[in-house]
Amino acid sequence: MNTQNIISRKQNGIVQPLLTDLYQITMAYAYWKTGKVMDNSVFDLFFRKNPFQGEFTIFAGLEECLKFLEAFHFSESDIEYLKQTMPSVEDDFFVFLSNLSARDVVIYALDEGTVVFPRIPLIRIEGPLIVTQLLETTFLTLVNYASLMATNAARYRIAAGNSKLLELGLRRAQGPDGGLSASKYSYIGGFDGTSNVLAGKLYNIPVKGTHAHAYVTSFTNFSELHTRILHSKNDGKPYDFVQLAIKWRSELGPLFKVVNAEVNDGELAAFISFAMAFPDQFMVLVDTYDIERSGLLNFCAVTLALNDLAFQAIGIRIDSGDIAYLSYVAREYFSKISTKYEIPWFKDLIIMASNDINEETILSLNDQGHKINCFGIGTHLVTCQKQPSLGCVYKLVDLNNVPRMKLSQDVAKVSLPGRKDAYRLFSERGDALIDLLVQTDEEPPSVGSKILCRHAFEESKRAYVTPSKVEKLHKLYWKDGLICRPLPNLEEIRDNVTRSLKSLRSDIKRNHNPTPYKVAVSDNLYSFLHNLWMESAPIGELT
Amino acid sequence: MNTQNIISRKQNGIVQPLLTDLYQITMAYAYWKTGKVMDNSVFDLFFRKNPFQGEFTIFAGLEECLKFLEAFHFSESDIEYLKQTMPSVEDDFFVFLSNLSARDVVIYALDEGTVVFPRIPLIRIEGPLIVTQLLETTFLTLVNYASLMATNAARYRIAAGNSKLLELGLRRAQGPDGGLSASKYSYIGGFDGTSNVLAGKLYNIPVKGTHAHAYVTSFTNFSELHTRILHSKNDGKPYDFVQLAIKWRSELGPLFKVVNAEVNDGELAAFISFAMAFPDQFMVLVDTYDIERSGLLNFCAVTLALNDLAFQAIGIRIDSGDIAYLSYVAREYFSKISTKYEIPWFKDLIIMASNDINEETILSLNDQGHKINCFGIGTHLVTCQKQPSLGCVYKLVDLNNVPRMKLSQDVAKVSLPGRKDAYRLFSERGDALIDLLVQTDEEPPSVGSKILCRHAFEESKRAYVTPSKVEKLHKLYWKDGLICRPLPNLEEIRDNVTRSLKSLRSDIKRNHNPTPYKVAVSDNLYSFLHNLWMESAPIGELT
Repeated sequence: MNTQNIISRKQNGIVQPLLTDLYQITMAYAYWKTGKVMDNSVFDLFFRKNPFQGEFTIFAGLEECLKFLEAFHFSESDIEYLKQTMPSVEDDFFVFLSNLSARDVVIYALDEGTVVFPRIPLIRIEGPLIVTQLLETTFLTLVNYASLMATNAARYRIAAGNSKLLELGLRRAQGPDGGLSASKYSYIGGFDGTSNVLAGKLYNIPVKGTHAHAYVTSFTNFSELHTRILHSKNDGKPYDFVQLAIKWRSELGPLFKVVNAEVNDGELAAFISFAMAFPDQFMVLVDTYDIERSGLLNFCAVTLALNDLAFQAIGIRIDSGDIAYLSYVAREYFSKISTKYEIPWFKDLIIMASNDINEETILSLNDQGHKINCFGIGTHLVTCQKQPSLGCVYKLVDLNNVPRMKLSQDVAKVSLPGRKDAYRLFSERGDALIDLLVQTDEEPPSVGSKILCRHAFEESKRAYVTPSKVEKLHKLYWKDGLICRPLPNLEEIRDNVTRSLKSLRSDIKRNHNPTPYKVAVSDNLYSFLHNLWMESAPIGELT
Repeated sequence: MNTQNIISRKQNGIVQPLLTDLYQITMAYAYWKTGKVMDNSVFDLFFRKNPFQGEFTIFAGLEECLKFLEAFHFSESDIEYLKQTMPSVEDDFFVFLSNLSARDVVIYALDEGTVVFPRIPLIRIEGPLIVTQLLETTFLTLVNYASLMATNAARYRIAAGNSKLLELGLRRAQGPDGGLSASKYSYIGGFDGTSNVLAGKLYNIPVKGTHAHAYVTSFTNFSELHTRILHSKNDGKPYDFVQLAIKWRSELGPLFKVVNAEVNDGELAAFISFAMAFPDQFMVLVDTYDIERSGLLNFCAVTLALNDLAFQAIGIRIDSGDIAYLSYVAREYFSKISTKYEIPWFKDLIIMASNDINEETILSLNDQGHKINCFGIGTHLVTCQKQPSLGCVYKLVDLNNVPRMKLSQDVAKVSLPGRKDAYRLFSERGDALIDLLVQTDEEPPSVGSKILCRHAFEESKRAYVTPSKVEKLHKLYWKDGLICRPLPNLEEIRDNVTRSLKSLRSDIKRNHNPTPYKVAVSDNLYSFLHNLWMESAPIGELT
């Protein structure tokens, strides 16, 4: 074991060979007992239905699978535990298990961040049956949530247009690492940052944050402000910042049409202290008490005081109430002040909303009209409330060069047997037209030639396609125990998501009644599949 | 830092002070800047609504919170990262931060595994504002999913009655550690085991598993069985087990009314090899091909062959189709064979169902009648599909002995200010009657005395209760930097769930239209709350 392996193993933490279902290990033993150790297998990892009632999915989690392969090794304590758990198993099997590695496995996969569709094998896993079977659960765990999360984030990105998107879900995530994965894969899907500091540190994602309501309620009046002096950004001169903010609040009173008794002093004290800590990044929650009668006025007073000292505030966050309406109210005050005091940037201050927002909320806000330019998304994003799991499966499609399939009364559940490659065919305009599955040993589709694309199950559904561009989706990622392609970093994966989604027609990406994207099989694969299907299906006898 | 701390820190893995929202750290800086370092705070961690449209919740995650406190320390690399992220922050603050520990924090909490209700503080966190505030996100992350999961599992336990329950959700969980937490907390909630091997190893939970469909499809005929000999459990004599199973299948053919061509040889070969690997724990999936015309017959043939060699099989798993109907069919064959060959245990073989089952499926199966005696639950359990997050919040209720509250137009969102203890009052029969919140400095409720219990917000809702037993729910768990109560192990927490749920009337626990359990405040707390509320609410002026 070399140093790099040790590092990978450490990085993987709980992602280790025991992070699997026991049945993988009982199967391994039964394969070993029955002499199937050297059987050569091909598995496909794929899903059958796009999540969120949508028509696309973003593939993610590949790098974690490859890192898992690098470190794949049963430790002494793993073996010890398995011996206790499976007392009837022969000792020699454990010797075999402790020597097992992923060296003989070969992995073809799509690039991480690619937009994908049902039935396309996202990863094709080849190699000795015992090892490939042992990878199933861990691969599914690593791909399912990562892809679901990236897809969810991409959908929010589409809904939010040019608004900024921040992920704020750690506290509601499914476990600490559910939170970390959410930050990572929502960034890939198009979010601009996260509140999760550890995610920022581990994955180099921008982190953002202001304060909670508790910060505001922790102040009751100005006497709690033990520091009052702030130095001007221009000339470094000291000012009594508390006095300055209070003066501005009096001046703004008539504009906001509120009497002094309505405006909360504790809130102003909290804003003042926060501005003194972050004069260049002043952004506060304005809904602890009453947004219209207290929060906005206090915010504007402090922002004008900061402006006197040459600091430019960032904006406000609204966490409750009718956010469309409140965003209009806030924007109007900002505009009025911008004009009255001739401060151009004041009208463009950020208005961030973070009140239990989901994809549909954003779309409905878009319909109503709003003045929000940043959304903070928590629960709905990170738990994927609309559909909290993606149904990726891992199916044996070939063993010792004999194609395998699981028959099912349910056509949707029939798997496509054999080794297959996927190609994406593009129109002249650069739109993705169709994904085509072909047998790995047949002629690949080529630019300019007329290709018959067939529905895998419905005989009459077929079409000719003459592609202007052909992209081979499957690439060799792992061979001889090594990752054999340079892995993109998070930014590059994120760019791939953007690029990949851009090639998709917008009717396929829309939230309401999206058009399904076509996935087809070659004429060859169609015949192969249907012959095999007829051969395997038993002829019953009605009695 | 002593050795124990180092160990704890390692055990916690990613659960570390940076696993938080950035705003906790920006707030800490603002508190520090404004001189609020020594402010003494009280926070309540609670939820407002039971999950899953139910009327109870199981509290879990406490031990993880306490372990987090033990290890609470910003490392050098954490500080380095924060310095880069917050470049405007004064260096002295980072010195302060790197010396911070949870030594001055005091934690009162309910026992882990206790059944709990909205508004009861599950954890009361006291101590210096900066530290208590820094714990918010991590505590919420640790409690939210753990409690949600334990509650979900407990609901399945109630629905399933005496059937065994196995958790099989790792592949569909939200990240690897979502899977581990799911195994751990579903065991606490009443599951009998998990398929997750690492969870078994880490938490000492029973692990179970047989095989996947791929195992069956990996065999096509008997020639692939490289070993044929199995030794009898009785006399150790060798038998040709393949021949024996094939003989039994011929004999059973007429009973199952199938012709040989319908029965899949690959499936029988797979069952034979699996039986030879696990003759004492034979349990197989019978739905790879056709349950009625192949799977059940092959299973019974192998089970009878095993019986000839004095081995007793365990049962079958059904993963598709109409499981109620199929369980009847299977049970009928088992009974017939039991009678015909005089094998008493044959009729009681386990029939396990694992086909996308949720709580409602089990209840509907109960209504229809079924012969299943074990459920394997995956996606719906581990992702808590019905409601994938619990809304625990963390609210400041007292600062420097001044009660704090966040007002809200929405009464449901008003927090209960001040330091409070919770008591559970029981009837003579031992049923839990009501939970009562009292101020920590008032007289606690006592057995036999008549206590006025009031609804926190609705003036007219109140009742006298004369409890036969009073249980103080809040206990001191952390003081002077140490866990100060012996922590129960997983089994003990699991027993607490059972005991705690048992004291709850069944109409509160039922799935359909459950009765809400009452949570009340003392008359004292009621007056305190309403006075404070009136004081804090500003009087507007309609203009």
